[in-house]
Amino acid sequence: MKLPGLITDPNTLAGLSHDEAEWAPAGTPYAAFRPQSTEDVQQAVKACAEHNVPIVPRGAGTGLSGGANATDGCLVLDLSRMDRILEIDRDNLLAVVQPGVVNDDLKKAVAAQGLWYPPDPASSPWSTIGGNVATNAGGLCCLKYGVTRDYVLGLEAVLGGPVPYGTAVQLGRRTTKGVAGYDLTSLLVGSEGTLGVVTEITVRLRPAPRPAGTVVGAFDSLVAAGQAVALSTSRGLQPAALELIDRACLQAVEDWKHLGIEPDTEAMLLARAETPEDADGLVAAFTDAGAVWTERSTDSTEAEALFAARRLTYPALERLGPLLTEDVCVPRSAVPAMLARIEEIGARHQVRIATIAHAGDGNLHPLLITPPGDDNARIAAQAAFEDIIDQALALGGTVTGEHGVGLLKRDGMIRELGPGAHAVQQAIKQTLDPLNLFNPGKA
Amino acid sequence: MKLPGLITDPNTLAGLSHDEAEWAPAGTPYAAFRPQSTEDVQQAVKACAEHNVPIVPRGAGTGLSGGANATDGCLVLDLSRMDRILEIDRDNLLAVVQPGVVNDDLKKAVAAQGLWYPPDPASSPWSTIGGNVATNAGGLCCLKYGVTRDYVLGLEAVLGGPVPYGTAVQLGRRTTKGVAGYDLTSLLVGSEGTLGVVTEITVRLRPAPRPAGTVVGAFDSLVAAGQAVALSTSRGLQPAALELIDRACLQAVEDWKHLGIEPDTEAMLLARAETPEDADGLVAAFTDAGAVWTERSTDSTEAEALFAARRLTYPALERLGPLLTEDVCVPRSAVPAMLARIEEIGARHQVRIATIAHAGDGNLHPLLITPPGDDNARIAAQAAFEDIIDQALALGGTVTGEHGVGLLKRDGMIRELGPGAHAVQQAIKQTLDPLNLFNPGKA
Repeated sequence: MKLPGLITDPNTLAGLSHDEAEWAPAGTPYAAFRPQSTEDVQQAVKACAEHNVPIVPRGAGTGLSGGANATDGCLVLDLSRMDRILEIDRDNLLAVVQPGVVNDDLKKAVAAQGLWYPPDPASSPWSTIGGNVATNAGGLCCLKYGVTRDYVLGLEAVLGGPVPYGTAVQLGRRTTKGVAGYDLTSLLVGSEGTLGVVTEITVRLRPAPRPAGTVVGAFDSLVAAGQAVALSTSRGLQPAALELIDRACLQAVEDWKHLGIEPDTEAMLLARAETPEDADGLVAAFTDAGAVWTERSTDSTEAEALFAARRLTYPALERLGPLLTEDVCVPRSAVPAMLARIEEIGARHQVRIATIAHAGDGNLHPLLITPPGDDNARIAAQAAFEDIIDQALALGGTVTGEHGVGLLKRDGMIRELGPGAHAVQQAIKQTLDPLNLFNPGKA
Repeated sequence: MKLPGLITDPNTLAGLSHDEAEWAPAGTPYAAFRPQSTEDVQQAVKACAEHNVPIVPRGAGTGLSGGANATDGCLVLDLSRMDRILEIDRDNLLAVVQPGVVNDDLKKAVAAQGLWYPPDPASSPWSTIGGNVATNAGGLCCLKYGVTRDYVLGLEAVLGGPVPYGTAVQLGRRTTKGVAGYDLTSLLVGSEGTLGVVTEITVRLRPAPRPAGTVVGAFDSLVAAGQAVALSTSRGLQPAALELIDRACLQAVEDWKHLGIEPDTEAMLLARAETPEDADGLVAAFTDAGAVWTERSTDSTEAEALFAARRLTYPALERLGPLLTEDVCVPRSAVPAMLARIEEIGARHQVRIATIAHAGDGNLHPLLITPPGDDNARIAAQAAFEDIIDQALALGGTVTGEHGVGLLKRDGMIRELGPGAHAVQQAIKQTLDPLNLFNPGKA
C-alpha cells in the first residue's frame, strides 16, 4: 500500500496499538499513518479499500474501552496531527476544528474570546475532540450542560458504502436548528469510528460560564450519599456538577498528591451551584439524607482543590494496579440501590472497588483494582465487571454512559439493546461500511 | 386488507388526507386506521407489508410542509387515539407517552407535578408529541432550552427492513446519558415517518421554569431589528425566547382579535429574560441597534398578551388567503442580511410577505400571502418561495429549521445536502424500509 510517510517501526506501532483500557485485546497493525489533512485521510481510506486493509482511527488514545485498539493487519490512522482550530465564530457561537485538537486547547482558545466549550471529560487535558466525538464523551458539567453530541452542529467525514470509499461528505450545518434530512451527524457521534473517519467538526459554543459556588457533603455510607443525589434531583435542583467520590478514591489521591484532604468519611459529594437557591437546596438535600457535615464555599481555591482531586482519581488509583473501569448509568432514583449492589458485588468477589460517579446523572464509575500480576484477582475482577453490568441493566440502566462500548462492553451492549435494535444497528453498519473496514469488531 | 375498524368513508378520508400546508399535493388513500395500541400498529404495518400498501402516519395534521399528506392507495395511520400519558416519573424527570398526546396536554400534566416539558411549537394547543417527534419540532423557548430531539430519551417504534415489518423495537433508554450503540433514537426523530411508526416516546422533563421578565423593542426597519438580534447573540446574552414580528403580522392579529396592540412600527422584538442581567443586556442591545423604543416588563399580563399575539399570527394571516410558510434558518449573524433579502424578493415578485421569526435562533418564517383564487399570485409566491430558500442556502443556512421537509422542500433539501450526504440518506431509507412503505416520497 503506497502512502507517503507510512509508519512501520514496530516500537512506534506498539505504542499506537491500544488505548488505556486494561485487558482489552490489541492486534498487530500492518502500519500507521498520520494524516495532516482531509485529503490525506481520503487517500488512506481509498488505499485501504483497494487493499482490503481495516482502518482503526485514533486520537490521543485515552479511551477506557479498547475502542481504539488495533486489529491484526490494520492501518492505524493517528489523527493527532490534524490539530488545528480552523475558525472561532464569535457572532454565531461556533468553532470549526480538526479532530486532533485537544479538548482543553479548544477550551482555552474559545475562553480567550469570552466563550465556553462545555464538554469536560476527566481526560480533557489530553483527549481530542475527535475522540470525544467518537465516544460522545460526557464529563462533569454535562449534568446541566449536556454531552458532546449536544455540541456537534456538523461534521465532515470520510465515508464509504453509499459513496465510494474515500469520499468526504459534509453533514449537519452551521445554524443552531435544522431538520433537513436524517440526523446523520448524531448517528456518527458515538459510533466509535465504525462508520467512517471524522475529519472536521463544527461545535456549538456557549457564553462564558457563570461563576459558581461549591457545596460539599460528607456521608458515613455510600448509600446515604446516593440518597442525597436522588433527593437533589427529585427536588428540582440544577447543579452544574454533582460528583460522588468514595473513601478509596480520596485516600489514593491524598497518598499521591498530599492535597490535605482528610478522608474520614465513606463518601463525599461535590457540587457546583450556579445560583444561591441551588446552593441552599443542595445543603438541605445533603442534610436531609443524613450528611455528617456539609459546607458551602465560594472560595474557588478550596473548591478547585476538591475538583482537582476528583480529576486525579483515575491516575491515583492506577498507581495501585491495573484498573477495570465501569461506566454504567442508571436512572437517577436508582443510584442508592446501584451503589449498594456494587458494594455487595465487591464483597462477594473479594474485589477492591473504588467508586467515583457523575452521580447527578446516574453515571457511575466503579473502578475495579487488581494487584499487578495476580491472575486470580484479574479473573475475579472480570466476573465482578459483568455482574455490575447485569445489575445496572436490571435497574433500567445502560452499560455505558459516556466511555463507549469498545471491546470491553460488546456483550453487555447486546444484552442491553435486545435482538431487534441490534439487528437495526448491524444493518446500518453494513450499509455505511459494506467492506467492514472502519474499526471492525468494535461497538 | 383485514383490519378491524378500517375507515373507508370518502368524507372522513378526505379530512385525513392532508396537513395544513397549502398547495402540497395530496393523494387519495385506500383507507384509514386508528390504532389504539402498539399491537394495532404492528398489525397494520404487517398487513400493509403483505399487500404492499404504503403507510402515511399522522397526528393532529397541523404540519406545514405536507409531511402527513396521503399518497394514492395508502393507509392513513391516524395515531391521534393513542393519546395516553403512560407515566410521569418525578424522581427521574421523565415521562412516557403515546404519540397522540397533545403537546399542551403533556405540559399541563407535568406542570401539575412541578415539572416542565419545554418544546413549544406555536401549534402546541393542537399538535401531538408524535408529530413533534416526526418533525423534530422547535418553538419559542428552544433558543435556550433546545428542540424536541434534545428531549427524547427513548422511543418504541414499529419498523421493517432489518427486522420483519411490524416488529416493535425499543430504542434509547431511560437514563440521562448512554452511548451503547448508534443513536437510532436521534435518527428517527425528524425522519417524518419515513423510517417506521413511533408508538411510544420517553421524554426528558425539567424542573418548572423560572419566572421570566419580558423585554420588548420596536424598530423602524426589519433590518435594524435583525441587527439587535445579532448584537444580543454576540454579546453572550441568553434570553429564553427572542421573537421577531413584523408590522403585517401585528396588524393581522390586531384586526382579528383587538388586543390593543398599536402596530406603529415596522418590526417588534419580544424577548423573555430569566435574569436581570439578561434583561438589562437586551434593552442595551435593542437600543444600540436603533430601537425606536424599548420596554421592560415583569407584568405577566402584558407580556402574555404580546406572546399570545405572536402565537396567533399564523391563524390571523390565514384569514387573508392561502399562506406559503417558509422555515429557513440562517447563522444568527446573517439575520439582518436575510431579512433584507426577503424584503427584496417580496418586492421583486410583488408578493406580500409577512415575517415572524424565532430570531434568536436565526429561524425565520416569512409567510407568503396570496389572494384566494388568484393563480398568477400563487405562481409568483411559489417562485418567491424558492428564491428565499436559495438566499438562505447562500448565507450558509438551511431550508428548514423546524417544520420538516415534507413535500414542499424536497428540492431545497437536495440542494442543501449535496450529492454525498443525499446518497447516504437514501441508503439508510433503503436499509430500514426496503419496501418503501413508510411515508413514501417524503423528506
